[in-house]
Amino acid sequence: MVVSTRVRLARNLADVPFAAKAGPADQERVVSSLRWALQEIGCLEQGRFFDDEQLAEPRGSCLLERHLVSPDFLSTKARRGLYVGEDEAVSLMINEEDHVRFQVLASGLDFAEAFGRAAVLDEKLESQLAYAFSPEFGFLTACPTNLGTALRASVMVHLPALVMTREIEKVLRGALHIGLAVRGLFGEGTETRGNYFQISNQRTLGQSESEIIETVTEVCRQLIEYERKAREYLMRNLRTEVEDKVFRSLAILKGARILTSSEATNLLATVRLGIVLGLINEVTLAEVNRLTVLVRPANLQVVLAATLDGAERDERRATLVRETLVRLRS
Amino acid sequence: MVVSTRVRLARNLADVPFAAKAGPADQERVVSSLRWALQEIGCLEQGRFFDDEQLAEPRGSCLLERHLVSPDFLSTKARRGLYVGEDEAVSLMINEEDHVRFQVLASGLDFAEAFGRAAVLDEKLESQLAYAFSPEFGFLTACPTNLGTALRASVMVHLPALVMTREIEKVLRGALHIGLAVRGLFGEGTETRGNYFQISNQRTLGQSESEIIETVTEVCRQLIEYERKAREYLMRNLRTEVEDKVFRSLAILKGARILTSSEATNLLATVRLGIVLGLINEVTLAEVNRLTVLVRPANLQVVLAATLDGAERDERRATLVRETLVRLRS
Repeated sequence: MVVSTRVRLARNLADVPFAAKAGPADQERVVSSLRWALQEIGCLEQGRFFDDEQLAEPRGSCLLERHLVSPDFLSTKARRGLYVGEDEAVSLMINEEDHVRFQVLASGLDFAEAFGRAAVLDEKLESQLAYAFSPEFGFLTACPTNLGTALRASVMVHLPALVMTREIEKVLRGALHIGLAVRGLFGEGTETRGNYFQISNQRTLGQSESEIIETVTEVCRQLIEYERKAREYLMRNLRTEVEDKVFRSLAILKGARILTSSEATNLLATVRLGIVLGLINEVTLAEVNRLTVLVRPANLQVVLAATLDGAERDERRATLVRETLVRLRS
Repeated sequence: MVVSTRVRLARNLADVPFAAKAGPADQERVVSSLRWALQEIGCLEQGRFFDDEQLAEPRGSCLLERHLVSPDFLSTKARRGLYVGEDEAVSLMINEEDHVRFQVLASGLDFAEAFGRAAVLDEKLESQLAYAFSPEFGFLTACPTNLGTALRASVMVHLPALVMTREIEKVLRGALHIGLAVRGLFGEGTETRGNYFQISNQRTLGQSESEIIETVTEVCRQLIEYERKAREYLMRNLRTEVEDKVFRSLAILKGARILTSSEATNLLATVRLGIVLGLINEVTLAEVNRLTVLVRPANLQVVLAATLDGAERDERRATLVRETLVRLRS
């Protein structure tokens, strides 16, 4: 039910103006400082560095769909830089809202892995760079909401049963109540898609990193428990309705000749539910996860090595999904 | 595109009060006169006669879904009788709105067959019974709208392409304009389902039988031509959209665990379009036609030999359709 765990840290350089006041030369200094630091600590051998000009479309959108950069990073006028680790578990944005924002992703619920790797990277970078830090407040950030730990600890959870039983709002309200943020699959401001939700801390000040992680973990465990109960309830009382939804979704994915990104995402999420409930065994979770990324517009064009308009994408997307699922079956 | 042709004649006995004034004894006399006449002309050997008590549920609804009786026939308080020919091409209702109403069905556009058989039956009955007839008006009927020929000549046409191109309203308005009636699949007052339409004459007075049939035939031929053009247009300009609709429908029929009668009818109608356009070959038209009848609530219960509530029907219907289509494929 927990798709992934993500830890994000925001850092700024002590000797360069923050984003709001930084000019092109300042931004350039941040990029080159970071590039040099990443080189020094051995990161560039294990991953790839992108200069500003290498972040143009369609790569920008493609990175966004893979959750390696933020929407703000794509739209900022600042001179940017991006580092992406070999397995895409680590990515580091330069000159987004802060000088440096880096994230570490881990599969499932695993803050030990995600925060562990983030802390190591943070320490290595700090060995090369002077961070803006206040003994009173902690790490200084462009926006006061990130001040202190500058840590965002989040989990991506798949809660289709709670959506089906209409308990999701009540359950998520509990998370909001204790000060956590809840978002749909594609980040802030976007509607929920495919019943994926991101739960993260909002407060970064007045709590230690481990307290933040503990809170998110605890809420995540509760959500898992609620989702588990909802699934049991569905399988006991509404099994046919669930099977109907699940097998229709699989059938449409295998039959459609036109699929929008949004419909494909929702159908794949329902198939995912079918797999975890043991109703579907002709497709694996890994395959569904892979397709869920591939059906996004930019990634689709990259994998097909083609520039396509909306209608062409919907058609090629349907073909890709259909052929993948039919191939898996035979 | 023309599913069937239907000819219906209304007749009344000269020496018995019409329905509005007929008491139970009168009604009984009509039933026994007709039964006797049908016996005399050899019909009872080739078909089946149902007394009023044999027309209770679920048989009544089942006959209605097979278009062998009318909704009015099911709800009338009068003492009824029904004759159904061996192949269900002929059926004769006793004490519906008129003393006798009988219909003959033929496949495709074939008034020669339908009207030919109806005329023969009419003549044979007239050899045994005295019809209420006026030299001035023609056959007398309970409702003046049927006076004269008392003939309703109708065709059931399947016009999915005209529905998809949104030309259907304009096209059918042409039929209304020249005085024809247009109905959806399940008779008067019901909404159109599955893009099937029934076209029939409204006037019965002042035109001969052959003039009526000629008008309906002519309009039917025009509709066929419009539908053919719409199909060509779709296949030339919107082939992917049509394929999407057609293959989704087939996929849902093969995947769903719950199917309402209305959804099944619509999906089957779209599959039918896929067959006639040459897109689908794993199912035959005959099989789609057979399923289209079987998915109706009463017929479903008869074929499954079970009395089922709505939810059970939707589930068993989905199973029946799925297993039929999957079996056909392998």
